[in-house]
Amino acid sequence: MSAHRIAVIPGDGIGTEVVPEALKVARAAGADLEAVTYDLGGRRYLATGEVLPDAVLEELRGFDAILLGAIGTPEVPPGLLERGLLLRLRFALDLYVNLRPFRAAASVGAGVPLDVAVVRENTEGTYAGEGGFLRKGTAQEVATQGSVNTRFGVERCVRYAFGLARTRRQHLTLVHKTNVLTFAGDLWQRTFEAVAAEHPDVTTAYQHVDAACIHFVESPQRYDVIVTDNLFGDILTDLAGAVAGGIGRAASANLNPDRTGPSMFEPVHGSAPDIAGTGTADPTAAVVSAAMMLDFLGEADAAARITKAVADLAPERGRSTAATGDAIAERL
Amino acid sequence: MSAHRIAVIPGDGIGTEVVPEALKVARAAGADLEAVTYDLGGRRYLATGEVLPDAVLEELRGFDAILLGAIGTPEVPPGLLERGLLLRLRFALDLYVNLRPFRAAASVGAGVPLDVAVVRENTEGTYAGEGGFLRKGTAQEVATQGSVNTRFGVERCVRYAFGLARTRRQHLTLVHKTNVLTFAGDLWQRTFEAVAAEHPDVTTAYQHVDAACIHFVESPQRYDVIVTDNLFGDILTDLAGAVAGGIGRAASANLNPDRTGPSMFEPVHGSAPDIAGTGTADPTAAVVSAAMMLDFLGEADAAARITKAVADLAPERGRSTAATGDAIAERL
Ligand SMILES: CC(C)[C@H](C(=O)O)[C@@H](O)C(=O)O
Ligand SMILES: CC(C)[C@H](C(=O)O)[C@@H](O)C(=O)O
Repeated sequence: MSAHRIAVIPGDGIGTEVVPEALKVARAAGADLEAVTYDLGGRRYLATGEVLPDAVLEELRGFDAILLGAIGTPEVPPGLLERGLLLRLRFALDLYVNLRPFRAAASVGAGVPLDVAVVRENTEGTYAGEGGFLRKGTAQEVATQGSVNTRFGVERCVRYAFGLARTRRQHLTLVHKTNVLTFAGDLWQRTFEAVAAEHPDVTTAYQHVDAACIHFVESPQRYDVIVTDNLFGDILTDLAGAVAGGIGRAASANLNPDRTGPSMFEPVHGSAPDIAGTGTADPTAAVVSAAMMLDFLGEADAAARITKAVADLAPERGRSTAATGDAIAERL
Repeated sequence: MSAHRIAVIPGDGIGTEVVPEALKVARAAGADLEAVTYDLGGRRYLATGEVLPDAVLEELRGFDAILLGAIGTPEVPPGLLERGLLLRLRFALDLYVNLRPFRAAASVGAGVPLDVAVVRENTEGTYAGEGGFLRKGTAQEVATQGSVNTRFGVERCVRYAFGLARTRRQHLTLVHKTNVLTFAGDLWQRTFEAVAAEHPDVTTAYQHVDAACIHFVESPQRYDVIVTDNLFGDILTDLAGAVAGGIGRAASANLNPDRTGPSMFEPVHGSAPDIAGTGTADPTAAVVSAAMMLDFLGEADAAARITKAVADLAPERGRSTAATGDAIAERL
């Protein structure tokens, strides 16, 4: 296989510390990566006022994949970089599936084995940014916030989830809040049922998002694949990360399954300004994100070997970022 | 004190089993209750097609408080009774605070003590029911779902939360998703900061809802009072219930703090059709809900004694609903 051209966005805080370990491990697994680093995130914004210049976005479209560390620094107003960079990339590159796998031998809580993949819709819902103010700043102020859901957007995401379930334990759970979100929930449920009819080999379930939170604590072994909307996926995957033993190990893939452009791979965790610079961040989530990238690029073997090496490495408190990267790389 | 006039809505499933225990315990604590039972819920709907007749709603306005068991049966389309009865009562009676306290000696997960009160806004947000369809049923369908937030509605809820924090450990956390829900989140944050300025004795924190889910698993001892919107409150309180040892013990108060009408008290759990009729439902949540009712009606002593009796009673698997009610009542 020829080299994979990868755009690397280390970003802010611990993002800049974990990404080199992810690249180190990917290369140790034999991946031929041609990496171009892009300086985007808080530092660049503070220095130049630029978040994601249009020309850079166009360049990024030309890569095979994007590996991102973490975005966000305390000096920048919250949301500005997240929306201007992270969410903009998800939307502009039409990365409509946010795939987040979780695995643990014993979940925090019930202590049962957990092996769940959450398929989060990644380009619609409340993340579309719909809404506004009326009489802002007065005692009569009204702030509205809209969730936009399309049959097109929901169906392609649900279809991906059924396809994924077929390659796993053939069980798919839709999580929503149909008893309250009667419009969005109804569209999701009708779409789910229509696609389910084409997949008689996949058993299905439905759960309200509040009940799903209980089940993640009490009986997460019930889940194989979960499909849900953008906001519920955001919430459930942080919970799943905690229940699987810590968000420091949770990886994610922002996928364009149609491959009309690059997909983007990133840890679920943020830039963690509190521990940035100490060299103690756990690079596992970035390493597994790189493995998901390799898998998506056709390097299933290298990806599987990294995943196994990570699973075999016992977590160790206080091990440095580089030492963890080295320990994983050595196992390959 | 003269008798309190209470409207009792046992509802469906285990609701009808736990409510009598709650009344038994309240009376054993010395409360003088004049209870009128209303047959509302799934059975009545299936028999008569009625959910909440206007005349009944008007009658309910005349009571000192409402004690509700649980609403919902599998034979009725999901959402119909919840919206037509439960949410209608919350909105029509302007029960704008949904107060849900959680306490555990050792949380499930981190194993730390947990003593949190969640103040959930109860009359706005996505629960307002805003939204609709475009091109429903076609490949071009769009479903929108709106969240409506007013300065009036947010401020009165936030004000209640600050007042509550003052009576506890003087710490209040706002949970929202300001980095994505830029309109609703901005209104919540500005309102929170304005009211905080009037409460210099209360320390404050802000957390995104996804991060809050992690913290509930990893370090719930950080929370004293949480204030949040309707949907996030729904999600977080089910999670908090699970982390505090099971939703079967979680109580809630739907409060009209201005006392322009009755407030409503109900377990957080649902009608649990799977165990209904077996006589094994844990009535603890209903009992504690009744204690919250007595407290709100000025019977602080009786309420405190019930709360203490519940805390002193070790949970016991397999104990019947009535035996648990008796065991609590005996301790009074
Ligand atoms: C940083 C934030 C905008 C983002 C999200 O809400 O999607 C993050 O929480 C995530 O889950 O990737
Ligand atoms: C039954 C449902 C409509 C309700 C809600 O979403 O508020 C319930 O989950 C709750 O938390 O009281």
